[in-house]
Amino acid sequence: MTTDLMPNRYRPGETELPSREAELIARRDSVLGASYRLQYRRPVHFVRGEGMWLYDPDGRAYLDFYNNVPSLGHCHPEVNAAMAEQAGRISANTRYLEPHLVDYAERLVETFPTEIDRVVFTCTGSESNDLALRIARYTSGNEGVIVSSYAYHGTSAAVAAVSPNLGDAVKFSPNARIVALPGPAGVPDSQAADFFESQVRAAIDDLNRRGIGVAALLFDSIFSSDGVWIDPPGFIAGGVQAVREAGGLVIADEVQPGFGRTGSHMWGFERHGIVPDLATLGKPMGNGFPIGAVVGRKGPMERFGAIARYSNTFAGNTVGIATADAVLTILQRDRIPENVLAMGQFLRDGLEQIASRQSGIRAIRNAGLFLGVDMGTGDASPTDRRKLALDVVNAMRDDGVLISTTGANEDTLKVRPPLICEADHVELFLAALERALAKVAVA
Amino acid sequence: MTTDLMPNRYRPGETELPSREAELIARRDSVLGASYRLQYRRPVHFVRGEGMWLYDPDGRAYLDFYNNVPSLGHCHPEVNAAMAEQAGRISANTRYLEPHLVDYAERLVETFPTEIDRVVFTCTGSESNDLALRIARYTSGNEGVIVSSYAYHGTSAAVAAVSPNLGDAVKFSPNARIVALPGPAGVPDSQAADFFESQVRAAIDDLNRRGIGVAALLFDSIFSSDGVWIDPPGFIAGGVQAVREAGGLVIADEVQPGFGRTGSHMWGFERHGIVPDLATLGKPMGNGFPIGAVVGRKGPMERFGAIARYSNTFAGNTVGIATADAVLTILQRDRIPENVLAMGQFLRDGLEQIASRQSGIRAIRNAGLFLGVDMGTGDASPTDRRKLALDVVNAMRDDGVLISTTGANEDTLKVRPPLICEADHVELFLAALERALAKVAVA
Repeated sequence: MTTDLMPNRYRPGETELPSREAELIARRDSVLGASYRLQYRRPVHFVRGEGMWLYDPDGRAYLDFYNNVPSLGHCHPEVNAAMAEQAGRISANTRYLEPHLVDYAERLVETFPTEIDRVVFTCTGSESNDLALRIARYTSGNEGVIVSSYAYHGTSAAVAAVSPNLGDAVKFSPNARIVALPGPAGVPDSQAADFFESQVRAAIDDLNRRGIGVAALLFDSIFSSDGVWIDPPGFIAGGVQAVREAGGLVIADEVQPGFGRTGSHMWGFERHGIVPDLATLGKPMGNGFPIGAVVGRKGPMERFGAIARYSNTFAGNTVGIATADAVLTILQRDRIPENVLAMGQFLRDGLEQIASRQSGIRAIRNAGLFLGVDMGTGDASPTDRRKLALDVVNAMRDDGVLISTTGANEDTLKVRPPLICEADHVELFLAALERALAKVAVA
Repeated sequence: MTTDLMPNRYRPGETELPSREAELIARRDSVLGASYRLQYRRPVHFVRGEGMWLYDPDGRAYLDFYNNVPSLGHCHPEVNAAMAEQAGRISANTRYLEPHLVDYAERLVETFPTEIDRVVFTCTGSESNDLALRIARYTSGNEGVIVSSYAYHGTSAAVAAVSPNLGDAVKFSPNARIVALPGPAGVPDSQAADFFESQVRAAIDDLNRRGIGVAALLFDSIFSSDGVWIDPPGFIAGGVQAVREAGGLVIADEVQPGFGRTGSHMWGFERHGIVPDLATLGKPMGNGFPIGAVVGRKGPMERFGAIARYSNTFAGNTVGIATADAVLTILQRDRIPENVLAMGQFLRDGLEQIASRQSGIRAIRNAGLFLGVDMGTGDASPTDRRKLALDVVNAMRDDGVLISTTGANEDTLKVRPPLICEADHVELFLAALERALAKVAVA
């Protein structure tokens, strides 16, 4: 694992910047401080967004193939109109009766398998995962949490402590256990399910031996921060079963894969043919408005809700609900997942064609419009591969196309455009990638 | 402490409701479940809000003397216009340069004493307190947290575990220690500071003896969930000093007292003449938009930020920033705190007049427009006092005025109108309280 936890970032002094940006960064650093990092060697500065595009102060357009929050595109007029209309009428909390809250909650759980019929709203994906862990620990009576090698589940204390992706700087919980994924371990597809299950069983045994017990298997069903390891579908099923047998809950972190990102399904766990006990939602739920949720089976949701007062001031607020309702309406009405499936395939085909005529691409993985593209030639060192990925990302940024990196070694291109992207956008992206590969030194 | 953790709520079967509300509650219960509780014996149902008023589906107006999130009033047109305008232009995250984020961050820290010059944005008050604890634990190297007897600091796992107000249902952290407040303990003002300091020193000694150490004193500077215990100003200073000497940080939870609620100051800790290491913000910051922050001194903020990647997807989003900026602009331009001070005094004077001619009011405490009004006659049992408070709150609700209860025994009326309230509103409130006291049986 690379020790630089955000390699694709601006480092003061490394790049000469125009005074407009340099002065803004100096002011920013002195009031926001070190925890705020800027993406790209030369940070981007945007003043306007529309659909697939972001614009800098000079009017230059950047094609956005990275942001998975505005999944219906930047500044969607219909979503914004719903938000503004509701904000002008009433912004009520959930301790007052309000029909829109109930209507949306019903519509949301209808998109899940029938076993999942309860929802609690939050404001962020981190709050969703934090609450899911509280529910799992309370209802299982256990403390242990099993996560994948480079999992990232959010920013709260409890969730950061089970996010190995944050590195050694953030204390990893003594109650957390890590399981390796078959893909990055080089296990063939035919043995992937057994490999994963045996990892999970070993983690359970260790947690039980120490009297910690297993509260939850917490996983992002496309393992995005591990480097987008999605195949073979179903490889997690044996591990899921093992956790259930040990008394733990299964929590699908749908913050990144959910709301149609995979194209084939509304929720990422569906690709694996399993039904979790809890699923956590966030990022694209309000196309940028801060809203998240925990959805789940009646059993654990009611056992927790009956004892614990969970009152989240802003969550379920009518303005967030109206915004999220507009997002769900558009996703369903415009059959966005169908577009995701088609564009995901088109993008993947284009990448394979580039890989066939140009060196530098080692592997391509995708579930709909979440793609991981491993960089480097076969014999390149991890350092060279990471440098290549960073060089490509930054060459594309200079060329006006936004992506970033992911994976244990941060040598995988992370490509996840808004879900409304069209063939023209894909072609622009592919052309920019090909130019970038031609320009940088492919080690 | 009452075992019913939210006494002012609807209990199915206790009250006969119109079918429109009964049917909505049945649907709500089956999708949102047990953790969602409705306020008042007969829940309220609102479809429109404006300034100090909320309206039910029949057009009946309710005077809002309870909601401290829309502190500039419901559906403020100028705040909403700023939100909508920004949402239509760009909704960018903090990894891209954007001047508005920096402008607002500078304006926000300028409202604090000069020692406090750094800010990290969050989405909720819970996230703010959770992050503040992470910073305090990392920079102190200790784990212990000292809180007041009935403190409530939020919903995340780490924060709920140091919130005794949540009761026995939520596991209280073995690293947390409780300190009694002088007011509810009946300690006279002249001994209040010594009493508080000796409580804090005893907590520190116990934490040190067990090798836990003190990471933070975490306190709401108006101790609202303890029952609004604000006096005498400065009584916390010795305890603050003791925590600093022991290597802990001082965290002012300004989620409720902040942004001018006390009238005399922008931030509640200023009433006590101390400067904390960190202060946490939430509720009224965006007049309802989900935004919060941790502000603090450079030392701990930079030590944490340098090691921990804190990346909160929605926090610092330009739409939240534009909304919060509009709120701060209006607070300052319209000199809202001056109105708070005047209306708080007018409200207090009116309550004292009622108390002088009608039984049932034992004590009145206020800091600006956050008031606690203890209910019951001198010899009433805790149960009778609580019943009286609930009867008064529900009689007022039926009369079209919204307040609720607080305190260890939930026998204190919690009165906290939007900060824009005017003399006419105060008079309506006082008349409704007098009617309610005349109507209910004063035990």
